[in-house]
Amino acid sequence: MENALEIYQKARKKLNAFHYAMYLISWDSETEAPVGCLEERSKQIGELVSMMLEISHCKEYVEAVKTLYDKKEELTTDLKLEIVKVWEELEKELKIPEAELIEYEMLLAKANNIWCEAKLNNNYALFAPVLAQIINWQKKYIQYLETDTLKGYDVLLNDYEKGFTKKEYDEFFDLLKKELVPFVKKITSLKPLDDSFVYKKYSIDKQKEFAHYLMDVMCFDKKFGLTKESEHPFTSGYGTTDVRVTCHYYENLLTSSIFSMIHELGHATYERQCDSKYDDTALSGGTTMAMHESQSRFYENIVGRSYPFWSKHYPVLQQLFFENLHDVELDDFYHAINKIEKTLIRTEADELTYPLHIMVRYDIEKAIIESNLDVHALPKLWNKLYQDYLGIEVPNDTKGILQDVHWAGGSFGYFPTYALGSAYAAQLYHQMKKELNIDEAFGADDLSKVNAWLKEKVHKYAGSKSPKEILLMVTHEEFNPKYYLEYLKEKYSKIYQLTNE
Amino acid sequence: MENALEIYQKARKKLNAFHYAMYLISWDSETEAPVGCLEERSKQIGELVSMMLEISHCKEYVEAVKTLYDKKEELTTDLKLEIVKVWEELEKELKIPEAELIEYEMLLAKANNIWCEAKLNNNYALFAPVLAQIINWQKKYIQYLETDTLKGYDVLLNDYEKGFTKKEYDEFFDLLKKELVPFVKKITSLKPLDDSFVYKKYSIDKQKEFAHYLMDVMCFDKKFGLTKESEHPFTSGYGTTDVRVTCHYYENLLTSSIFSMIHELGHATYERQCDSKYDDTALSGGTTMAMHESQSRFYENIVGRSYPFWSKHYPVLQQLFFENLHDVELDDFYHAINKIEKTLIRTEADELTYPLHIMVRYDIEKAIIESNLDVHALPKLWNKLYQDYLGIEVPNDTKGILQDVHWAGGSFGYFPTYALGSAYAAQLYHQMKKELNIDEAFGADDLSKVNAWLKEKVHKYAGSKSPKEILLMVTHEEFNPKYYLEYLKEKYSKIYQLTNE
Repeated sequence: MENALEIYQKARKKLNAFHYAMYLISWDSETEAPVGCLEERSKQIGELVSMMLEISHCKEYVEAVKTLYDKKEELTTDLKLEIVKVWEELEKELKIPEAELIEYEMLLAKANNIWCEAKLNNNYALFAPVLAQIINWQKKYIQYLETDTLKGYDVLLNDYEKGFTKKEYDEFFDLLKKELVPFVKKITSLKPLDDSFVYKKYSIDKQKEFAHYLMDVMCFDKKFGLTKESEHPFTSGYGTTDVRVTCHYYENLLTSSIFSMIHELGHATYERQCDSKYDDTALSGGTTMAMHESQSRFYENIVGRSYPFWSKHYPVLQQLFFENLHDVELDDFYHAINKIEKTLIRTEADELTYPLHIMVRYDIEKAIIESNLDVHALPKLWNKLYQDYLGIEVPNDTKGILQDVHWAGGSFGYFPTYALGSAYAAQLYHQMKKELNIDEAFGADDLSKVNAWLKEKVHKYAGSKSPKEILLMVTHEEFNPKYYLEYLKEKYSKIYQLTNE
Repeated sequence: MENALEIYQKARKKLNAFHYAMYLISWDSETEAPVGCLEERSKQIGELVSMMLEISHCKEYVEAVKTLYDKKEELTTDLKLEIVKVWEELEKELKIPEAELIEYEMLLAKANNIWCEAKLNNNYALFAPVLAQIINWQKKYIQYLETDTLKGYDVLLNDYEKGFTKKEYDEFFDLLKKELVPFVKKITSLKPLDDSFVYKKYSIDKQKEFAHYLMDVMCFDKKFGLTKESEHPFTSGYGTTDVRVTCHYYENLLTSSIFSMIHELGHATYERQCDSKYDDTALSGGTTMAMHESQSRFYENIVGRSYPFWSKHYPVLQQLFFENLHDVELDDFYHAINKIEKTLIRTEADELTYPLHIMVRYDIEKAIIESNLDVHALPKLWNKLYQDYLGIEVPNDTKGILQDVHWAGGSFGYFPTYALGSAYAAQLYHQMKKELNIDEAFGADDLSKVNAWLKEKVHKYAGSKSPKEILLMVTHEEFNPKYYLEYLKEKYSKIYQLTNE
């Protein structure tokens, strides 16, 4: 076994170096690479990926990992967890013929451009054939990976959030459907809150200044990270010592940069607060997509759209944009950032209607994978579901089924983790309230108390504990979506002054 | 041989992908990486480098290259040139024990920090021991690489500019010493030209605007490159489709960003105008350091400090900084950017005194390598040479021997190529004047005519022709420094109205 460990660790070092290079290449692509270099770049990436596969699929490495997996009980706790994770992923990978995987990657590279064009021109028919090919591949993938206990769509769902399958998600979304759909209907029938002032002209330089203020409020250490602009905000990095966030600034929409900054800094805080002993191991970084999303949404919505937070920081914002905000009171601002609206675009949705957007996508993915619904039937289903869940008419496919990049990128089973993340966050928040003085923690000069709590309860474990383990350990019960519903209903009943809830 | 070619090409693809990754990692380090990530980064770079060595030093690869080299006459012209270059470099590399090379790299990594601190604190004694170690390594390196025809300092000089050894450089610098030192003395004894206005306050945003204007003037295609800020300006890239320049802006020094931008864009134009068939081969990019420097200096000095160039573009600059420049006439501006001064710092030196700074370093390197001068004696020699060549007193080591990073980086034999580059540029210019209407080409809306001429004569060949071959082909004679002297004397005699020259 010693020999196996040596082989594993040597290969791991090499694979890490490749991951490191790929991280920086993709960071460059997303933030500044000139468009003319991308053809050369895809060639070089292809070469790097094929070198990685040479290492991770070679017989010696596979056998070493298998040996370690078989004797995992003899390993130290962290190494055991790492080997289990690596072996499970490797086992999956090896079930898929390499040639098919490469063909699929090439399909995806093409698909993204076609999707862009289709979205730009509101032309779903253009996208449909390539979407059909991607769906076919998903089905083939499922066949390769199906086990006695995991079948169909569950294979994909389990890929993104281990242990969550249709059974769990159906229960979760059924509850939301029952409780949230009528609640949203009621709220959106009331007089809308006024948020007109957020659409005034806000200098981008000053927005950037406020973004840096938020970095300080969230205790983001610029020694180990940076912020930059990109078309779509995201967080990236390597280990705990290099964590980067991006933002997009709109001159006519103050709130976009503020909340996307808090959201991305939430992801970044999670990464930064992982125990650094996991750096360069397979357990590095947040434990799952849903848990990562729970942290970004915790900061963005639970903290960032709270009254105590803005009691502290609104005066700073008001001072910065005095001309636009001098006659906007704290309460007006708080209401504006919590305005509920039936809207078409997921990424612009408010906290309350957001999970309904996810439900639409979950239902459609189920229909695609399990009921073999034809791609040409999808826009109609999309539009019907927006009517059912949000009571809104979809005017065209650009603002409908073509809005998200995910399916063009082959991500099926990913969307549900977004809603799950919000629910994790609410369950953690329920516990935090018992242990912290929230007004004080959210309304302090900085969020160090919030950070410290989340570090201790969630972040420090990196990938060494699953969300299920973390929730049980921290909240003393299994995942329970009722906290999410309670949180939403309580908050928005108060804001919209619903007395009979 | 077919088999050897296959082995070579397969390995080359892999090595290219590593070079590509290293290029972007180092670009990131130089322009934005947070300082806290650098420890992790050096570990990952170490791993990437060791993987590269595994490929390029493995027996199979070395034998394949050797086989191709031995049968080079059977190869196509470009492949033959490539193999010769690769084999010559590989042969050198293999003469140095890998362990010593790694030890040396670690020494250099340490040396840079020590040099920074020594420079900051004007403490040469701090730097001396590590400099001594680096010098020892240079001597060991020379021993490994000495041949019957190349000995001592020549080994290093030849590394940076093939075919240039002490013999050629001595001739070159002796001529400069004889002609330029008295010429500079005469000019600096005259009433200084007035450049006080360049030290006024110039908005950095507007300087950036003008930098973008210069990019257009130089026909820099932003589809294949970009500009960014960094502490020290430089040019980087990969092949012809990704070429990047950086700039540093000083609020109180207008000319710094203008001329460093033109300089770096000169390097970039060379890279961009290489024939793209050399991309991904060992012949990619400019042919040597000196030729690269000749191109950046051609644009910076010969074009960028010329009267016709500013006749066209000064009105734009004047308009942009109207408050500061409205009463500065074109002639005043032209004189200010060509002001000759005895100064201490090489990188801030004017076009005329610049080669004297290089002569100081050349003499010192010779003394170090050939006369075994002790490191503790170097500052005294430095100060004496500044007195001899420039007639200037060096007040401290920070502004003296500690000013350049090169020796801390192990670059011995590099400095002379800077002066050589200027001389190449002047010889090319002498020919250009016969073929182009200079007033028209330099004074046009953009520099497309200059670019086209240099592309045809120099750039398109990339690394497939040596500077010697290029000069002979373009100017119909061997390298001849008299054109450099003529150019300098003619230009500055006119500006300083020396009638008896």
